[in-house]
Amino acid sequence: MPKQQKRTAASPVVKDRLKRCRRHMKRAGISAYLVTNPTDYFHLIGFSGEDSAVLILPREVHVISDGRFDETINHECSWATKWLRKGLLNAEIGTVVRSLKLRSMAVQAEHLTVDQHGVLRHHCKLRRLGAAPSIVGDMRRIKDASELTTMRQAIRIAEAAFEAMRDTIRIGQTELELAARLEYEMKRRGSTSPAFATIVAEGRNAAHPHARPGRRKVKRGSALLFDWGARVGGYCSDLTRMIFVGSIPPRIETIYEIALDAQCLAIKAVRPGARMCDVDAVARNLIADAGFGEAFNHGLGHGLGLDVHESPSLSWRSTDKLKVGDVVTVEPGIYLPGVGGVRIEDDVLVTATGHRVLSRLGKHASDAVIRSKR
Amino acid sequence: MPKQQKRTAASPVVKDRLKRCRRHMKRAGISAYLVTNPTDYFHLIGFSGEDSAVLILPREVHVISDGRFDETINHECSWATKWLRKGLLNAEIGTVVRSLKLRSMAVQAEHLTVDQHGVLRHHCKLRRLGAAPSIVGDMRRIKDASELTTMRQAIRIAEAAFEAMRDTIRIGQTELELAARLEYEMKRRGSTSPAFATIVAEGRNAAHPHARPGRRKVKRGSALLFDWGARVGGYCSDLTRMIFVGSIPPRIETIYEIALDAQCLAIKAVRPGARMCDVDAVARNLIADAGFGEAFNHGLGHGLGLDVHESPSLSWRSTDKLKVGDVVTVEPGIYLPGVGGVRIEDDVLVTATGHRVLSRLGKHASDAVIRSKR
Repeated sequence: MPKQQKRTAASPVVKDRLKRCRRHMKRAGISAYLVTNPTDYFHLIGFSGEDSAVLILPREVHVISDGRFDETINHECSWATKWLRKGLLNAEIGTVVRSLKLRSMAVQAEHLTVDQHGVLRHHCKLRRLGAAPSIVGDMRRIKDASELTTMRQAIRIAEAAFEAMRDTIRIGQTELELAARLEYEMKRRGSTSPAFATIVAEGRNAAHPHARPGRRKVKRGSALLFDWGARVGGYCSDLTRMIFVGSIPPRIETIYEIALDAQCLAIKAVRPGARMCDVDAVARNLIADAGFGEAFNHGLGHGLGLDVHESPSLSWRSTDKLKVGDVVTVEPGIYLPGVGGVRIEDDVLVTATGHRVLSRLGKHASDAVIRSKR
Repeated sequence: MPKQQKRTAASPVVKDRLKRCRRHMKRAGISAYLVTNPTDYFHLIGFSGEDSAVLILPREVHVISDGRFDETINHECSWATKWLRKGLLNAEIGTVVRSLKLRSMAVQAEHLTVDQHGVLRHHCKLRRLGAAPSIVGDMRRIKDASELTTMRQAIRIAEAAFEAMRDTIRIGQTELELAARLEYEMKRRGSTSPAFATIVAEGRNAAHPHARPGRRKVKRGSALLFDWGARVGGYCSDLTRMIFVGSIPPRIETIYEIALDAQCLAIKAVRPGARMCDVDAVARNLIADAGFGEAFNHGLGHGLGLDVHESPSLSWRSTDKLKVGDVVTVEPGIYLPGVGGVRIEDDVLVTATGHRVLSRLGKHASDAVIRSKR
């Protein structure tokens, strides 16, 4: 039985998202849509619990959860019908489906595992348990004003933390110490967690695009790569900057200038209707023409939002087109094994007239040189 | 085509795990096992890349990844056959399957999504694409000596960080500030990331089992709940302790003593062969007898390892039995909405003769009181 509770109305943002979701459902012929991806149901109705499911019907929303999130539901979505399971989630979903006498339901085939699908089929005994198209994933791609406000906060916090951390850099500190400081400065400013594991890579460690901070130390003349992001209200920022201690090693300066040119030129190509592969090619061709084609071994960027990697993929593989409201990273890199690497990354919003770079940290080589301090 | 590379032999730990995996495969009649859960293939062969797959055959191991993890593979598993995709992962898996002329393959149905399964089926064109039983999941449950060494490090780092953070607590600091400090102290000691989002909850915020640290401030007489863990070499620790600033509020002291008694008694019940529900009941009955049954609204604990929540579930729902080599959390809590909450959590290894508590931080109420400092 669903639990009784005091109800307050859903917010205008949630009402609007549900309305759009139901429009997509109708178009796809779906009368019951089971959302099991926690990031997706957070986007739809603002419920932040885990191990739960949200069932969207044409006129009702049911939240199926457990005792741990009882208060959370009261706080975040008291307007929905609440079911608190004692047993397994899929069994409780079956109870809900049978109580409501549903005859068909569509699931998130892009999130539900093969096993969960089998268990759900067993418990629901529906005439039809189909796969929905990627409704919420598509909705999440286009950021609305309230999302952009939060994303800007996540970017500002990451930037302020970077500047605070930069002032503390001293010769002899380890990559780990700098990563710890950067995450500390983000968290005390309100970031719930790093958006991903912070990368701090000194010298040749930066030749790995996914380097992990370790015991390597800051030296006079070190080239340091920082790739970090804050998470605020669920939303991620994702930035990469270099810091050079005292001076820039000549080979690194060469590739830094190439990567920076590639990044600036690619950002200029960001506009509605541009194909992902074409924007990627702007940076890739410039880097290849400079003789470092093999050394740029990943895509140009990715969508950013509640997930640090989400749709769209700004990559040579994709012929999809940019849309107004996309937020993407633009992050070419050049990696020289045994020597070092550079990458520069900003977060860019696609606007009706082209784009707006949401991040503000300086990125000219001269901005990146700091005094060498003991 | 697979890439050529300089090969070094697999470590004895990896060889042993592969041997056990292949024994399970043989028993289940599986000649090709596709491991797509990154945590599982890390456990099996020590490869830490993402968006990849590892194919286990009776005499070969194939790693299917992309350029980002080229160097990682060379470093972590150069003995395996490496395939670097340019296109989509499932398409490359199809290429591998067809090159090797496989006729059947078993996937991780507990991890693969319904969509991925469909795409894989399309690309592989196998006579049989079956679901494997939870082979690696079961293997991961029982921790070997090398895993226990790493888990002890993750616990020691979390404990040392807690003690360092405790010395910095001052009246007026926010929950967020303390959480930031605790994570900083873990990271600089070598934790790659928090094992989960650190909980710091002051006063009545602790009435939520999954409270998030915010702007609430430390006051004279505050009861503070900390639930935190480090991640080291992939392995998690997970601890909960209370700190009382100056003195313990009387109602909180009452529930603290009950929760502590329940936790100590439940730990005593941890031994091989004990049913999960029976260990859970030891704590639950004691708390219920004291009149707070409704206020303990989650399971007693969970398995701990590469995931912060993994098999087994130490819960009233499970009639499964503890085994030698299980590492579980034991964490009863009592939550009083509008007032506050307490929880005490240790990490416990099941041994042949009973159990060993791996964590060492004091937990008597007197250990938890600190001086009230400005």
